[in-house]
Amino acid sequence: MSPQADFERNYFLKDIPLQIAQDKYQNHLLDIGALLKKETEIISIKDSVGRVSSQAVFAKISSPHVTTSAMDGVAIKYESSLGATETRPIKLIEGSAFLWVDTGDPVPEGFDSVIMIEDLEKYSANEIIIRNPVAPYQHVRKIAEDIAAPELLLQQGAIIRSLDLACLGAAGLSDVKVNIPPKVCFIPTGTELVKIGETPGPGQIIEFNSIFLSALVEDWGAEASVRNPVSDDPTLLEQALLHSIIDCDILVVIAGSSAGSEDFTSSVMAKLGEVIVHGVAIRPGHPVILGSVSGKPVIGMPGYPSSALTTAELFLKPIIYGFLKSNEIVPDQIKSVMGKKVASPLGEEEFLRVVVAPVNGDYIANPTTRGAAMTLSISKSDGVIKIPANSEGIEEGSTVLVTLNRQRSEVNKTLLISGSHDIALDILASELTFAESGVRLISSSVGSVGGLLALSKGYAHIAGSHLLDEETGEYNFSAVKRHMPNEKVRIYD
Amino acid sequence: MSPQADFERNYFLKDIPLQIAQDKYQNHLLDIGALLKKETEIISIKDSVGRVSSQAVFAKISSPHVTTSAMDGVAIKYESSLGATETRPIKLIEGSAFLWVDTGDPVPEGFDSVIMIEDLEKYSANEIIIRNPVAPYQHVRKIAEDIAAPELLLQQGAIIRSLDLACLGAAGLSDVKVNIPPKVCFIPTGTELVKIGETPGPGQIIEFNSIFLSALVEDWGAEASVRNPVSDDPTLLEQALLHSIIDCDILVVIAGSSAGSEDFTSSVMAKLGEVIVHGVAIRPGHPVILGSVSGKPVIGMPGYPSSALTTAELFLKPIIYGFLKSNEIVPDQIKSVMGKKVASPLGEEEFLRVVVAPVNGDYIANPTTRGAAMTLSISKSDGVIKIPANSEGIEEGSTVLVTLNRQRSEVNKTLLISGSHDIALDILASELTFAESGVRLISSSVGSVGGLLALSKGYAHIAGSHLLDEETGEYNFSAVKRHMPNEKVRIYD
Repeated sequence: MSPQADFERNYFLKDIPLQIAQDKYQNHLLDIGALLKKETEIISIKDSVGRVSSQAVFAKISSPHVTTSAMDGVAIKYESSLGATETRPIKLIEGSAFLWVDTGDPVPEGFDSVIMIEDLEKYSANEIIIRNPVAPYQHVRKIAEDIAAPELLLQQGAIIRSLDLACLGAAGLSDVKVNIPPKVCFIPTGTELVKIGETPGPGQIIEFNSIFLSALVEDWGAEASVRNPVSDDPTLLEQALLHSIIDCDILVVIAGSSAGSEDFTSSVMAKLGEVIVHGVAIRPGHPVILGSVSGKPVIGMPGYPSSALTTAELFLKPIIYGFLKSNEIVPDQIKSVMGKKVASPLGEEEFLRVVVAPVNGDYIANPTTRGAAMTLSISKSDGVIKIPANSEGIEEGSTVLVTLNRQRSEVNKTLLISGSHDIALDILASELTFAESGVRLISSSVGSVGGLLALSKGYAHIAGSHLLDEETGEYNFSAVKRHMPNEKVRIYD
Repeated sequence: MSPQADFERNYFLKDIPLQIAQDKYQNHLLDIGALLKKETEIISIKDSVGRVSSQAVFAKISSPHVTTSAMDGVAIKYESSLGATETRPIKLIEGSAFLWVDTGDPVPEGFDSVIMIEDLEKYSANEIIIRNPVAPYQHVRKIAEDIAAPELLLQQGAIIRSLDLACLGAAGLSDVKVNIPPKVCFIPTGTELVKIGETPGPGQIIEFNSIFLSALVEDWGAEASVRNPVSDDPTLLEQALLHSIIDCDILVVIAGSSAGSEDFTSSVMAKLGEVIVHGVAIRPGHPVILGSVSGKPVIGMPGYPSSALTTAELFLKPIIYGFLKSNEIVPDQIKSVMGKKVASPLGEEEFLRVVVAPVNGDYIANPTTRGAAMTLSISKSDGVIKIPANSEGIEEGSTVLVTLNRQRSEVNKTLLISGSHDIALDILASELTFAESGVRLISSSVGSVGGLLALSKGYAHIAGSHLLDEETGEYNFSAVKRHMPNEKVRIYD
């Protein structure tokens, strides 16, 4: 459809605030019972890592299930050792006063302690000598000291981890009841789409959103499937939507690059079901569509990758955790100082991707390249900050909260170079990462002067600079003096 | 084998310090070329999450690959808009001065900016009016603004994440070359072992270590397989080892509960290959055996679960990352204050599992139930602290570094109740976790007085106490007065 043909159409979406959009949609999904699905399955604990327990898990047997010897040696009654000394040893007779035990053997009835074989002296074929008294329950694993059946092992809604498998196994469980992951179906739309691996012509776009989003929802515990792309044709989209909704729990229509395709999605969703929200005051991601068809959540997701990511995190992730009946694990957050001023439009909540480095005891956050269509800056970012709708941006030096998408330990090993960029830095970055130290080098391109300023303010570890002083014909010296008057500078040739 | 038959055997292992053991083993593996394996495979980016890139990944095409319109509207030369105002609009003619474009369309040759359709006025069939000047490249995605081929996307050795798939797709990659994960084979040993799901008789033990360890090594990027358990018989172990070493890259013999089985492992390993280290001064896990057979790493791992976990983390994990040629991602670490005194033997590095809660601005760490055989405390722990070999333990109130096995965000939502335990607390904990708040309640059983003391020192949020004052016949009042003299107390009936 040419935009000219559609010239009179109202292109303005009524963007509503994020919290209102989330609440409205959540209430709608509750109203239509979309999250009530309660399917569970019983699976082997071998396959349970990452799955969500559908009910509390209790121990079947105690661990240890009988009192056992923790050592190879002899079982005795501790009273029979009392008073033994180096010079006045006590002699014990096999059977009545001691019995031989291996590690893991039950401690025989009537005995309560174990003496290690290396602490014994043999006296005769069936007699031993001990020269030290023994504490009650020495070298003994008391029944249920680890797990006392039916002790609670996992709560309902727990995401099972590798570290949980030991106690499940020890408590006699071979399988566990888990929630069945929701099936998320993605429908990419857009006549301009070509598959990954194909070379796009002018005006064509590689369809990688479905791969990217599938991987994301699988991280969150869902199952993903992808339909063949649908051209920009409302009838075809309607057919695809009706066909796909049958087999999935959540349907996501990924918009093509054309604004028109979003309008198709909205009108097709409205025809087949309900559109609850069209347009949210967020950046990126504002043209998102939230609705339902046949009692199932349907999301119209913007096609720009960064918009798709933001809307997936804000709207799709909570639905997946709702199906899984599990609390979402919130990533680590780091208080940081903004290393650069960032302007942001009033009235929109902005989700800004940043890199973070620890400089002089503070974490410094710098924005990555902004834009809804960016992908490399997603990959390079360390996390996201939220700029509230009622803010015009963030001042340099103000405190922000970064929600990390990396381990804090990686951020802690980061060197931040600010200033003029050079390809040599990329090569250095690569060498450093691969070195045993695992140091990451990130660079913030703010020009030569910006780099010196960043260094002087404690916003960078290193500054890249090549400033020519036209009076002297020398590089950098006068600029360093001017911008960093209080620093001692050493010069290396 | 009965311990009596073996009475004269030397049971003392020569435990060597951890760092020396790790270095010795690493050097041995380098000497025999055990980590030189360089197999790679090419896989679809769809399947690449969690895999390790075997070489640097560069962009095949730029993104966008041509300069495109970011909006539906018209492409113009920005110069032709200069001077336009509300009162003195500029009229442009289609073809020479503007062309209609859709979002994603290439910006036609000779044009550089786009005006959104909603900012236009139509004047005639092929004329528009504009009333504002336009900035160069307005609403245009410049060629390569996201990715400039052949820009570096991933470094060699990078662990590929879902967030990386967008830039891989945008840069025209459909597949990626990755290292083939090492195959780790586990051989459980011990005549006393029964399978999970079976009810163990007295003296029998459920074999769950192989399941637990398989899940762990898969978390670390390896492939796991498990052989049927081998009885305590050196000949059978020798056969199993020779048979298994063929198909795997790393072999792990899991000791049964009997100390004897460790000796079989050591002697069989020495016979078939080399034993480099037998016994390391760590707790738990000191009887670990590090060696090689047929040029491949072989580890004899203690059978107690907590020992197995510690030795897997210390010795197996680095080998796996060595094969993967990737830096291990170190988990998050938290500086905490020890809430309880912990004694630890001199001469051994102890790895102590702890729970952590934020109390009054400090993180407070309390030990979980110690012991090599414990499993539930592994699952319940939030992380591990290392007590150095030259330390007799940790004083209450001293600073420790906790290596977390949970997200910090989970720890941040933790309420710590200290003192006298009650089953009602378990029920409350369960309710809280499942509530939307996601608050975790952990309890540290230190008795009623211990709880009041912990509260007074800022080591707990809540204290559980039921102390009877025998003089007055009242509970708690006098104890609270005595142990918390400086706190205002309010009483609820």
